[in-house]
Amino acid sequence: MKIAIAQLNYHIGNFEGNLQKMLNATTTAKEQGADIVVFGELAVTGYPPQDFLEFDDFIQRSEAVVNSLAKAATDIAIVVGAPCRNPVVEGKDLYNSAYFLAEGTIQQVVHKTLLPTYDIFDEYRYFEPASEFKVVDYKGSKIALTVCEDIWNVGNENPLYKICPLDELMPQNPDFVLNLSASPFSFTHAENRIHVLKANVERYGKPMFYVNHVGAQTEIIFDGGSLVMSPDGTVHDELPYFEECIRTYALESVQKGGVKHVQPKEKMTLIHDALVTGVRDYFGKLGLKKAILGLSGGIDSAVVAVLAQRALGAENVRVLLMPSQFSSDHSINDARELAENLNVQYDLIQIEDVYKSYESLLQPHFAGTSFNVAEENIQARIRGMLLMAMSNKFGHILLNTSNKSEAAVGYGTLYGDMAGGLSVIADLYKTEVFELSRYMNKEGEVIPENIITKPPSAELRPDQFDSDSLPDYDILDGVLYQYIEKRQGPKELIAMGYDEKLVHRILKMVNRNEFKRAQVAPILRVSSKAFGMGRRIPIVGKYLN
Amino acid sequence: MKIAIAQLNYHIGNFEGNLQKMLNATTTAKEQGADIVVFGELAVTGYPPQDFLEFDDFIQRSEAVVNSLAKAATDIAIVVGAPCRNPVVEGKDLYNSAYFLAEGTIQQVVHKTLLPTYDIFDEYRYFEPASEFKVVDYKGSKIALTVCEDIWNVGNENPLYKICPLDELMPQNPDFVLNLSASPFSFTHAENRIHVLKANVERYGKPMFYVNHVGAQTEIIFDGGSLVMSPDGTVHDELPYFEECIRTYALESVQKGGVKHVQPKEKMTLIHDALVTGVRDYFGKLGLKKAILGLSGGIDSAVVAVLAQRALGAENVRVLLMPSQFSSDHSINDARELAENLNVQYDLIQIEDVYKSYESLLQPHFAGTSFNVAEENIQARIRGMLLMAMSNKFGHILLNTSNKSEAAVGYGTLYGDMAGGLSVIADLYKTEVFELSRYMNKEGEVIPENIITKPPSAELRPDQFDSDSLPDYDILDGVLYQYIEKRQGPKELIAMGYDEKLVHRILKMVNRNEFKRAQVAPILRVSSKAFGMGRRIPIVGKYLN
Repeated sequence: MKIAIAQLNYHIGNFEGNLQKMLNATTTAKEQGADIVVFGELAVTGYPPQDFLEFDDFIQRSEAVVNSLAKAATDIAIVVGAPCRNPVVEGKDLYNSAYFLAEGTIQQVVHKTLLPTYDIFDEYRYFEPASEFKVVDYKGSKIALTVCEDIWNVGNENPLYKICPLDELMPQNPDFVLNLSASPFSFTHAENRIHVLKANVERYGKPMFYVNHVGAQTEIIFDGGSLVMSPDGTVHDELPYFEECIRTYALESVQKGGVKHVQPKEKMTLIHDALVTGVRDYFGKLGLKKAILGLSGGIDSAVVAVLAQRALGAENVRVLLMPSQFSSDHSINDARELAENLNVQYDLIQIEDVYKSYESLLQPHFAGTSFNVAEENIQARIRGMLLMAMSNKFGHILLNTSNKSEAAVGYGTLYGDMAGGLSVIADLYKTEVFELSRYMNKEGEVIPENIITKPPSAELRPDQFDSDSLPDYDILDGVLYQYIEKRQGPKELIAMGYDEKLVHRILKMVNRNEFKRAQVAPILRVSSKAFGMGRRIPIVGKYLN
Repeated sequence: MKIAIAQLNYHIGNFEGNLQKMLNATTTAKEQGADIVVFGELAVTGYPPQDFLEFDDFIQRSEAVVNSLAKAATDIAIVVGAPCRNPVVEGKDLYNSAYFLAEGTIQQVVHKTLLPTYDIFDEYRYFEPASEFKVVDYKGSKIALTVCEDIWNVGNENPLYKICPLDELMPQNPDFVLNLSASPFSFTHAENRIHVLKANVERYGKPMFYVNHVGAQTEIIFDGGSLVMSPDGTVHDELPYFEECIRTYALESVQKGGVKHVQPKEKMTLIHDALVTGVRDYFGKLGLKKAILGLSGGIDSAVVAVLAQRALGAENVRVLLMPSQFSSDHSINDARELAENLNVQYDLIQIEDVYKSYESLLQPHFAGTSFNVAEENIQARIRGMLLMAMSNKFGHILLNTSNKSEAAVGYGTLYGDMAGGLSVIADLYKTEVFELSRYMNKEGEVIPENIITKPPSAELRPDQFDSDSLPDYDILDGVLYQYIEKRQGPKELIAMGYDEKLVHRILKMVNRNEFKRAQVAPILRVSSKAFGMGRRIPIVGKYLN
């Protein structure tokens, strides 16, 4: 028995594209001598299809793809994830299912039991959980078919579910386990995944084939890293990260165990490659090519420029340098040097004249007030507006350069530096942005050293530094991480040794700025808790603020 | 046995405020001679508390409020909704519960069984469903305690759930049913609610007391309209819409039936009052007072200005008239007349000079291109920027004036007319905005007639009209309603008689503009399907576009 894993980059709702990709992979798997080829969870629709699932037309198109794949399932079995209608009138209308296709027809449909409904996941919004458990018989083998989360309820201290699908299947004595996944990237996920598969293999003693998606769907990135685990708990093979791959394995050799093909999991390498994938697929899947961003001379826009250039190519990236009367010379020079290092088109646009024309227009209304955040924001918004004007005129998509620390505390201007179609690094704390910049310079200076070493400043008034308004980033990021990723409250944070006043000040800033984060572009997710669809906080809430 | 219904306006996370409000209501209920006072679902935390529920500190504060209420439950029983920890390690960590408090302690805790997880609801994200069913014994009565959705699985053609909590409780022969709700407003909801309660009463023959929230939490509005239903299927009483109210009922007289107190449910009255509530509570709950908006002379901003003035008072509303070289005289005159009718402060700011300074700044880059959407958007963004500058300087919150039709097809400028802290009418199709304007003028002209009768125009280039770029609003809104509210696909729409090309064009516009809607302010929800948290569509999706 030979099993092919097809780790592919699907596109939500692109039924023709997904079908063609899977037909090609089926041909490849056949060439590799496979008896079965396995695709990912909801591979037919792409993941997550979200509320498209509520359209009957969408489900019909998905069913048509499943039928086409069934027809192609000759001399090979195809296992593919797709929604399946629930024939029972009570309960949700759909199942999240794995279709077993062979001999030109649908042989069996197995439904997902454990429906993740937390963080970015909303599966119980759409799907009814499975209530029956039956292995698939194929060519004399018994196969335990599972979908993603179904294998994640093993070895947790606080399991989310009361049921364990493989416990239900084991009495039927399957020969091996297939798991169709769409398991989103975070920088610790590849490690966690191996632990969970190990826990399963240790409990059940069966070979496991775990098939993941690769590529990004708006903010959600899939890293691939599909796994084949031997019954002795060793990783028989781990597929590459961030690229499509089709590989075939002989069951007998997986049974034997003793091989260990594991890739390094260095945090910054993973994050770097994930973000490049995220930018590339956002553009690719929307049929776009060209990006624009403002280069301030600061670290955030520098890092985004490098990512954009690597994702889209230098010829598709354009940057604007938009100094005001408050910009320092070094900012302009640093930005120019970076643009030249990256070999991207750059233009210098002085914003002082436009600023003055706003000033004179507002003078009758602002008379008697002093320079404050209103005037600072005007500068940031002029820049946002110029970038959008170029975007509208020439079709470049504006990349947003906010980081997670400033997004958390609201240190940014709505419709100014918070503008953009995709937020590239807003799931990286400022300290992580610095780490990433150093990683980028590891094999030769790309980002001018001065950009990395100078103290961060928004340069919206004379001699302004981030440290005037914010705690040191080391401390700020520590508190933010505990609050956002770890859901620690004020008491826990103070018990960790953080200053009481500072804790209250930071949590207040985070909660009061929910309204700003409600209006930002999708944020490429690389942590276990990113701002956006995976973190839902009421705007009018009066908690800790 | 006398039962008091307390229909209150809670505030998410405002534990002290919610406690004080419930203690006051308990005093009132005692004065009315009540044996029991009933509050709403999750009244302690406010609804929906969303991911605040993931913070242990948040749950502790909620528990403290429940304990304080228990101490106040002397000479009266208090029934209140709050989260309850799940002591079992498997499953979700919390229940969504109704606490029965009497004689100074927690007597019983009943958990919600049916957890809505669709549209704006995410309850399965947080809560474990109940698996036990036990009536509450109090002063010789048996009480069936239910939470919101628990009574909504009766009489549906396509029930979402496999269980019916009252079916489980009836063998224990309860004397009456209490239902603690947080049931969001839509303009058909008050009607639906009566149907569902009637279906329950017809099935079980027991008096029902349904207690709703009132007031808005960001985009979600609660209309109140709490109900007392007699076993004969008549509405014994319906509490007022959009105001707090505490009323006490003798069980015997409810048993008798034959009374019918029902309020009129005229669509535009309900929508008008809901939107006024939505604006008022957004400001009130955030501790804000003053609003600003741009008056274009068009219908959308006119309607929002009226709502703002009614919600916040004329003294708290400021408007800007910002004509460009493309604005018609009548626009300025109409806007001025409206501002004078409303008695709100208005200022005229000509944007042409700023526009020209952008033009000259961009001239080297735009050379050789012709006037297009880029130049149109610059004007819209100058206006957004001026409004935000006033907002930042004086603390007025910008109200967004987009309607649902333009939000649907992307006929608006990001960071321009799509800016704002709260989107007031973006759940009203253009045709409904006209309806609402006529409703506002019913008792005397508030909105100048010319604003209502002239053809809609964005006035961003000479002689521009909406009809140049969009289908007639009557047709557009019909297609949008079927697609958005009713999830009809292209085949169904064409079968309804809509032109095939037009259908494809409209659906494409809707799906391609998901990226714009991802960045807008929260939208006050008045329909059964609003843009925002209740409608989740992938941005990179390639479906119907």
